[in-house]
Amino acid sequence: MPVGKDTRQRTMDSFMIKVSILGATGYTGSELLRFLLFHEQVEVVKVTSRTDIGIPVGQVHRNLYKLTNLTFTEENIEEIVELSDVVFLALPHGQALEKVPQIFQAAKQKDIKVLDLGGDFRLKDPQVFEKYYKLKHTAPEFLKKSVYGLTEFNREKIRKSNLIACPGCFPTGALLALLPLARENLLTGDIIINSATGSSGSGATPSEGTHHPERAYDYKAYNLFSHRHQPEIQQELERFNRNPIEVTLTTHSAPMVRGIFTTVYTRLSKEISEDQLRDLYRGYYEKEPFIRLVDQPRAAVVAGSNFCDISIASQGRKVIINSAIDNLVKGGSGQAVQNMNLMFGLDEKSGLGFPGTHP
Amino acid sequence: MPVGKDTRQRTMDSFMIKVSILGATGYTGSELLRFLLFHEQVEVVKVTSRTDIGIPVGQVHRNLYKLTNLTFTEENIEEIVELSDVVFLALPHGQALEKVPQIFQAAKQKDIKVLDLGGDFRLKDPQVFEKYYKLKHTAPEFLKKSVYGLTEFNREKIRKSNLIACPGCFPTGALLALLPLARENLLTGDIIINSATGSSGSGATPSEGTHHPERAYDYKAYNLFSHRHQPEIQQELERFNRNPIEVTLTTHSAPMVRGIFTTVYTRLSKEISEDQLRDLYRGYYEKEPFIRLVDQPRAAVVAGSNFCDISIASQGRKVIINSAIDNLVKGGSGQAVQNMNLMFGLDEKSGLGFPGTHP
Amino acid sequence: MPVGKDTRQRTMDSFMIKVSILGATGYTGSELLRFLLFHEQVEVVKVTSRTDIGIPVGQVHRNLYKLTNLTFTEENIEEIVELSDVVFLALPHGQALEKVPQIFQAAKQKDIKVLDLGGDFRLKDPQVFEKYYKLKHTAPEFLKKSVYGLTEFNREKIRKSNLIACPGCFPTGALLALLPLARENLLTGDIIINSATGSSGSGATPSEGTHHPERAYDYKAYNLFSHRHQPEIQQELERFNRNPIEVTLTTHSAPMVRGIFTTVYTRLSKEISEDQLRDLYRGYYEKEPFIRLVDQPRAAVVAGSNFCDISIASQGRKVIINSAIDNLVKGGSGQAVQNMNLMFGLDEKSGLGFPGTHP
Amino acid sequence: MPVGKDTRQRTMDSFMIKVSILGATGYTGSELLRFLLFHEQVEVVKVTSRTDIGIPVGQVHRNLYKLTNLTFTEENIEEIVELSDVVFLALPHGQALEKVPQIFQAAKQKDIKVLDLGGDFRLKDPQVFEKYYKLKHTAPEFLKKSVYGLTEFNREKIRKSNLIACPGCFPTGALLALLPLARENLLTGDIIINSATGSSGSGATPSEGTHHPERAYDYKAYNLFSHRHQPEIQQELERFNRNPIEVTLTTHSAPMVRGIFTTVYTRLSKEISEDQLRDLYRGYYEKEPFIRLVDQPRAAVVAGSNFCDISIASQGRKVIINSAIDNLVKGGSGQAVQNMNLMFGLDEKSGLGFPGTHP
Repeated sequence: MPVGKDTRQRTMDSFMIKVSILGATGYTGSELLRFLLFHEQVEVVKVTSRTDIGIPVGQVHRNLYKLTNLTFTEENIEEIVELSDVVFLALPHGQALEKVPQIFQAAKQKDIKVLDLGGDFRLKDPQVFEKYYKLKHTAPEFLKKSVYGLTEFNREKIRKSNLIACPGCFPTGALLALLPLARENLLTGDIIINSATGSSGSGATPSEGTHHPERAYDYKAYNLFSHRHQPEIQQELERFNRNPIEVTLTTHSAPMVRGIFTTVYTRLSKEISEDQLRDLYRGYYEKEPFIRLVDQPRAAVVAGSNFCDISIASQGRKVIINSAIDNLVKGGSGQAVQNMNLMFGLDEKSGLGFPGTHP
Repeated sequence: MPVGKDTRQRTMDSFMIKVSILGATGYTGSELLRFLLFHEQVEVVKVTSRTDIGIPVGQVHRNLYKLTNLTFTEENIEEIVELSDVVFLALPHGQALEKVPQIFQAAKQKDIKVLDLGGDFRLKDPQVFEKYYKLKHTAPEFLKKSVYGLTEFNREKIRKSNLIACPGCFPTGALLALLPLARENLLTGDIIINSATGSSGSGATPSEGTHHPERAYDYKAYNLFSHRHQPEIQQELERFNRNPIEVTLTTHSAPMVRGIFTTVYTRLSKEISEDQLRDLYRGYYEKEPFIRLVDQPRAAVVAGSNFCDISIASQGRKVIINSAIDNLVKGGSGQAVQNMNLMFGLDEKSGLGFPGTHP
Repeated sequence: MPVGKDTRQRTMDSFMIKVSILGATGYTGSELLRFLLFHEQVEVVKVTSRTDIGIPVGQVHRNLYKLTNLTFTEENIEEIVELSDVVFLALPHGQALEKVPQIFQAAKQKDIKVLDLGGDFRLKDPQVFEKYYKLKHTAPEFLKKSVYGLTEFNREKIRKSNLIACPGCFPTGALLALLPLARENLLTGDIIINSATGSSGSGATPSEGTHHPERAYDYKAYNLFSHRHQPEIQQELERFNRNPIEVTLTTHSAPMVRGIFTTVYTRLSKEISEDQLRDLYRGYYEKEPFIRLVDQPRAAVVAGSNFCDISIASQGRKVIINSAIDNLVKGGSGQAVQNMNLMFGLDEKSGLGFPGTHP
Repeated sequence: MPVGKDTRQRTMDSFMIKVSILGATGYTGSELLRFLLFHEQVEVVKVTSRTDIGIPVGQVHRNLYKLTNLTFTEENIEEIVELSDVVFLALPHGQALEKVPQIFQAAKQKDIKVLDLGGDFRLKDPQVFEKYYKLKHTAPEFLKKSVYGLTEFNREKIRKSNLIACPGCFPTGALLALLPLARENLLTGDIIINSATGSSGSGATPSEGTHHPERAYDYKAYNLFSHRHQPEIQQELERFNRNPIEVTLTTHSAPMVRGIFTTVYTRLSKEISEDQLRDLYRGYYEKEPFIRLVDQPRAAVVAGSNFCDISIASQGRKVIINSAIDNLVKGGSGQAVQNMNLMFGLDEKSGLGFPGTHP
């Protein structure tokens, strides 16, 4: 018998949110389960897989062994819609373009909610999507309806939406670092975003770049000027910042498993003291449960948790902002659950109120 | 305002167990807080430190920042006893020899419970203690009263005791691997225990052996024939096994942070098939919430969790048993909390029912 | 123009040993090139590959970029035999069964030498080979002629042979630890060999076990009672030790890239003091250029070098021997070059006289 | 008897350069010995230490055990000057201010050469030195005489100098990335330099930032706007670039041991195509033995070697340059030996012509 929620006083089953996850064999799915199986208002009803149909979840995600009796099933949209209040999509890029219309069509009158953790509904301009993802956007009407799920800056829309495009991992760290400035129209010109990521961002499929002998002691840059997350960051900053800006995102492979560390460089549109900057950030973040203003963000300190740690330093108009997140949690599955909490009127921290596992 | 328990329905304060931790600045203390701050029947009332008096816990254990308002205080035994139902000792070896008598003396009639995470009360023979710890045992009367806190094999005594000597990290992994055999008197002769540990086992104080450039790509053996945990394992096996045995423990430094992986080699006192062996282990462990019988234990899979994963293989009378634990959790603070749960009549899994953070 | 040997006074070309490598795209090939390209009496004439024909070596082995003008070619045995004095086989297991006969047939009267770094000619009994490699041995006549290339214990035979079966990586570390005892008939009964290896031992092809997110913080045992290197160790010990022995090898995956650390446990056939044991080892190894008797062998200290560091400890008849090697060097390509030096009458250290890269 | 040079035909002893190293117990000293003990025109005569006097070098630098008979001695300047042709200073910052005058005073007429690997003679303006190093510069006359030892851009001066200030590790990677642009006056405005370093850059003394449990899975920024290497980079760029520039250097701790990876962001003073840029770099670097223009520099590929791998990418006037070095080799001891070679009229590659140890 699995351990887990049985130690706690549970809400009555009739109030439990029924959750399904499409594509739950990867790391995103694994992390969703790490949170949702222990979320007191959630019951996970279906987890699908293309490769592991019929296999118990605990045989694939070994850390969950003896903690759940769930088994991977095939993807039956009709059944999933019938059984679920909310569906998480943890699919390769491009697949949600198909699944999202199918789900809402199958739902008919039923009020179902969808959270997509892939990139299909993040870029509002289908042409930009096609340029960066090399795919035609086949569901533009849903693109219009979808809401960008950066929780801290989009709460009201997320609450009312039934289709959330959860942000990419790099954009989460970069936007949380930059949006207080963008909201005050303090950005202008070049916005240099230098990020380093752990290997779990590459997913569960082995490849040369994540082969241990190649990666363990290595550090390198990749996708210069062409990373898909660059236009996503630009888009979200421009929603608020009126001055023209130009985002440059450079991503790096670093030899840890979890974490994205971001260093942002820019010159503000007007001079403002370091103290004032910190006040500005405190105004935005002091009451945020998952944002911490610190002296020195560290990837290892947030690892395993839904926190984003942020620091600000400046010299004249030059500003450097650092942020650290766990790419799979705040930069992925944790933020998705945070959004689900909002959508169902729950406390935003439900199922996410644990610290990082440090050291 | 800290996130954490406020999202859950809490038991009334009057039923909360009041907990104090002596020596809470190290990794053992850090992990105790990671569990106890989110334990629904616990209120942490005091955390002491010699070096960090007056400093908020979240400034020292950065992963707990914004999750607790606690501050380190000095060690005032009278006050701690007055405020607490249970005291955890996370002190350097030797200090509990002094603190345990002080606590029970100050308690007078009050029914206070103590869990010692150090080595002072593990070895029942004061002479063996002195040989391995190079210290005279100054509290032999408490040594007699203390109960060895290997939860799975000592439940009844732990429930009734008010002084628990929590097992060492290596003995936890080794004994969980070996005790089903010892209970059946299947051990005889040489018991070879080969263990590899992550660096967090060395504690939070920097030293040459944990200097990153020296440790990160290294693997080495240490303390051959002389490790303090060797007599501890021998003692606990001999409580059950009647045949003469001779334990050899060799510990190794491996380049991960968390985890102890143990490989036990022995020849059984009688032939018994691999299937029968597995049945034997299933009999002992199937209903255990924190023991999992698996094909291939992995340090990374249990990291962050209170699980001990175990496998058994045999060939004739030769047996190899593998076990994997997180040294700081099942091998330290997690097991201590599991014992506390037992001592207060709670569900043993309270506050510990989360999976490892994998990958 | 490549840097490298041009800074040194070279021997005349006519005295240079012409070397070819079959299967040079993997890590074994990469390391052979790291030594042979800078070996003063060697000219590498051909390096073959199935996947990278026509591609410059420096594009595949990036550390060699700008250091060689060689290009991978297809495998033309006739041409290779014509051009070469010696051929290294760095092929997947099983392929040398075919290549070795082809090479010697093509050689006709030419005195060509072959060093096989795979497992095809290590096990002298074809039935044992078939049991462990799941392959029929199709070249038993060459198996008889081949010499086991553990340099320190087989020098005279290696000098005279033209077909060397270079030892496996685990056997190298285990045998160097054990052979002084076997030579004195001091072994008896169980020989427990516990080894931990870095990920480079798995080769250059990505797989789940070497996927960075899975491997980086992990430790696990594999192939219990069934590792191919177990009969190899047993065979070589039994060449010298007359008492019956039973070798148990357990291999573990540790989270470094390079290194095999071995801990051997046994009880000697007669009591002998620790001092006498150390004298015994000094007698065997003091003059060996690549064996160092040390207090505490460390994987990181030998990494990158051809050294094997060894320590001995005992208590009564119980003995623990530790050894540390770089699996790709002393446990692979370095030892192969050491053997080549012997076969050509060169100083055994030629091309190998550099220290490990530590830290 | 140590292995090493005895396998090669040595130049006659009378032509050997006599080398001493002050402060040879750290990683810089260790690496100097790794190169100089095997350098065919070098004899290491004295290595000093404050902590390890009388201890054999191989007991401290375990990778050198059995490779040298040298023993650490105390620092006797008179004797060192008498015995040596060249002295390397591998001392903590500030100590060379004292030692350099002492050495030249003791040398009198003798033509002795000094290479300082610390920061005391890098910054030409004593006030800038005092600001960043918090020390008064007490040897300004030697500051004037000293030559900045970035080999590729200062060859003629290095050849004629007898006091070399070897560049800092971050400046080496940054300047090799930027100087071709600076030489063409293509730099203007903000020069953003984002660097990540391995832990060996922190030296051999344990500290919290290099404690394995804290560092192994971490990534963080440090010394924002205040790193000592920032004015060093600014100074050297301004020697060539006439447009006003403003250097911002941000250094990060990454969880590998060796390597500095640098990402430079800037907008050129005029538009120039990516192809032209690459031609420009080829012009500067094609014939350089230790600079490689590659598609994607990688820290792991250069580790252990004296190479600096560089890539260039641009979009309009925006340029991103990446460079990878081993901080202890090209960013430290390797470059120092390269300079020594120049100063003595040797081939610049002598003792350094080996590849990185990859994987």
